[in-house]
Amino acid sequence: MPTALRLTPNAYLKGLKIATTNCGIKYKNRDDLLLIAFENESNVAGVFTSSSMPAAPVTWCKKNIKNGVAKALVVNAGNANAFTGKDGELAVLATAKKAAETLGCKDSEVFISSTGVIGETLKVDLITAAIPQMVANFSSDEAAWDKAARAIMTTDTKPKLIKKTCEISGTKISLIGFAKGSGMIAPNMATMLSYIFTDADISSAALSILLKEIAEETFNSITVDSDQSTNDTVLLFATKAAGNPTISDPFSAEIADFKKALHELSLGLAQMIVIDGEGAKKLIEIEVDGAMSCQQAKEVAFAIANSPLVKTAIAGCDPNWGRIVMAVGKSCSETSPEKIIVKIGEYQLTKDGAKHPDYIEKTVHEYLKNSEIKITVNLGIGKHGATVWTCDLNEEYIKINKDYRS
Amino acid sequence: MPTALRLTPNAYLKGLKIATTNCGIKYKNRDDLLLIAFENESNVAGVFTSSSMPAAPVTWCKKNIKNGVAKALVVNAGNANAFTGKDGELAVLATAKKAAETLGCKDSEVFISSTGVIGETLKVDLITAAIPQMVANFSSDEAAWDKAARAIMTTDTKPKLIKKTCEISGTKISLIGFAKGSGMIAPNMATMLSYIFTDADISSAALSILLKEIAEETFNSITVDSDQSTNDTVLLFATKAAGNPTISDPFSAEIADFKKALHELSLGLAQMIVIDGEGAKKLIEIEVDGAMSCQQAKEVAFAIANSPLVKTAIAGCDPNWGRIVMAVGKSCSETSPEKIIVKIGEYQLTKDGAKHPDYIEKTVHEYLKNSEIKITVNLGIGKHGATVWTCDLNEEYIKINKDYRS
Repeated sequence: MPTALRLTPNAYLKGLKIATTNCGIKYKNRDDLLLIAFENESNVAGVFTSSSMPAAPVTWCKKNIKNGVAKALVVNAGNANAFTGKDGELAVLATAKKAAETLGCKDSEVFISSTGVIGETLKVDLITAAIPQMVANFSSDEAAWDKAARAIMTTDTKPKLIKKTCEISGTKISLIGFAKGSGMIAPNMATMLSYIFTDADISSAALSILLKEIAEETFNSITVDSDQSTNDTVLLFATKAAGNPTISDPFSAEIADFKKALHELSLGLAQMIVIDGEGAKKLIEIEVDGAMSCQQAKEVAFAIANSPLVKTAIAGCDPNWGRIVMAVGKSCSETSPEKIIVKIGEYQLTKDGAKHPDYIEKTVHEYLKNSEIKITVNLGIGKHGATVWTCDLNEEYIKINKDYRS
Repeated sequence: MPTALRLTPNAYLKGLKIATTNCGIKYKNRDDLLLIAFENESNVAGVFTSSSMPAAPVTWCKKNIKNGVAKALVVNAGNANAFTGKDGELAVLATAKKAAETLGCKDSEVFISSTGVIGETLKVDLITAAIPQMVANFSSDEAAWDKAARAIMTTDTKPKLIKKTCEISGTKISLIGFAKGSGMIAPNMATMLSYIFTDADISSAALSILLKEIAEETFNSITVDSDQSTNDTVLLFATKAAGNPTISDPFSAEIADFKKALHELSLGLAQMIVIDGEGAKKLIEIEVDGAMSCQQAKEVAFAIANSPLVKTAIAGCDPNWGRIVMAVGKSCSETSPEKIIVKIGEYQLTKDGAKHPDYIEKTVHEYLKNSEIKITVNLGIGKHGATVWTCDLNEEYIKINKDYRS
């Protein structure tokens, strides 16, 4: 094992080391490249964008995730390496080879992500030149995690980092995760990169089942602007350094506490992404119940969450709940006005297909001044539900996206 | 026949009379109520919102359109009479009764639309008080059509009115249509009201087939903000006053010219709605070809047209074509990067899954300064195509919709 991989005694999470640097792809005066090296073979699971235009690093990760083994993670910000053809594939391969050579592992054990502009050739020489130098700066203390979270940012206004602890069979387990994303956020992994690490010893097959289930209710239940990215990636790594008895069964009672912590951490990161949505000022939780299936509930919830008219009304603290009704009407053909109940916060707005007689606009207007808003809709046609999260839509979103590349 | 219905000699289109007034529902200093009376029984066809939360007047029109006979049209602006329960139904009935009583026809021959805020009780007394007085001001000259187009506006910045002429079997035929709509515009009749009138003698069954076919390629091929309204209505009236031999076969050669004129008029109105999209500065035409079906082509075209990231990029004249690729990727799982060809204007941007070697960003940036923009995508997986129209997304959209009711 190369010297650089020996662990520092003050590691927050045992079994890995972190380095970041500015390699000059796009940004000045900030780090834009992240390298994480695992001391031993780490187990790994992932979920990825469902786009038919996946970025080159996504295709790479999708192929190698099947082995369930990771020795390194490399992430660059500023260029998405998406829609870059053969050059893009070669850039990924060069990155993997350089990291593998530097850290002493197989190419296929190097996981890679990119985020930034689509369609521009990635200057991979900047990355391959930086990797060998980064090894000298490896660290695993708390500050290193903060630097990691910052190095993958694009239009994010703040880093997104969450830590949790739990127990498996009496052994203390740590989890830590960080994420980026604020535009192009929609179901099925919008421009979101998220990496979660644990020192638990859990098989990659079990990790994969846990991650898919939890991602559906967290990372795949958020939207900023309905646009899904070519690069979305969530990776979950388990270094096995905590020393718990190996877990292979994702449904075993021993990992109930771990599962809860992983869910909370994932939801926390997902919500941080929404709160940091481009120009966003409010976190909006949308719960749809009384649906014929969870899928239907989620579709209606997303129709509300993706409606620019709903999002601008909430930005303006305007209880224009007719726009919620509009979004329900366009997304669910099975319900009808007299069946649905719409609430904003604790206030029931509708009854018998019309405005509730007790509805006081001023009260709801006051409620909408809060930074966290809850919308509840009961479709009145079944027993299933789903919850999604989004943000309000402000002028700043337009400004940011008009000027993204200028 | 009541005196008021006798036609003025300078009628632009024979067989009907128009009156507008301010009845005080919401606006001051402008007309907000439109009444059109047909001299004889007019044939009528319609297409309506597919929302499961249709406004009361939509439900009324859907029921009565089956008879194919119209004697009057009443439209108010400022209140949508949507999600208004029993009161909403009673308001429609009261309006129909008053118009029928005033004009001497059946309730079911009165077609009604409303546009404005959802969920507020419509003060129908203002409408029923105004109708009998409007009869004194009937007119059918050109100025009356302009007033009609203005009376149905909400956040529209300008009236939308188009005239066409054509021939059926040697008889000169006139068509005239007007529309409103600028927010909540999406496929399947977004907050759009559109009324088209002709003096041709065409059966209501034939009108219905023609309108459905043409609406699919015009009114149902536009989007401003992906939101579909509870009130969308397109009505096509034929007064039969031109005296052509009655047409009952929508596929007959005699109406090829009429069909072309109706298509042009419908597309013109649809495009005027898009150009007047809230805050819009550019008309964007999106053509998708090489699809496995027209439906697939339309879905991909709408995914591009509804992407806030694509629309803001165009607002900023930024040739950020990666966002077009992103929209294709999220909406079409059958294609892949090396299959698609993306063009902005005449400029081919992609080749072999990457940026085209001849692509010059500055040239496309200059092209994007035009007020009409064309985007073309070939999916490379079939032979079908579709075209949709949208507008760019600017800060003004947010401002308008934050402040809609204040």
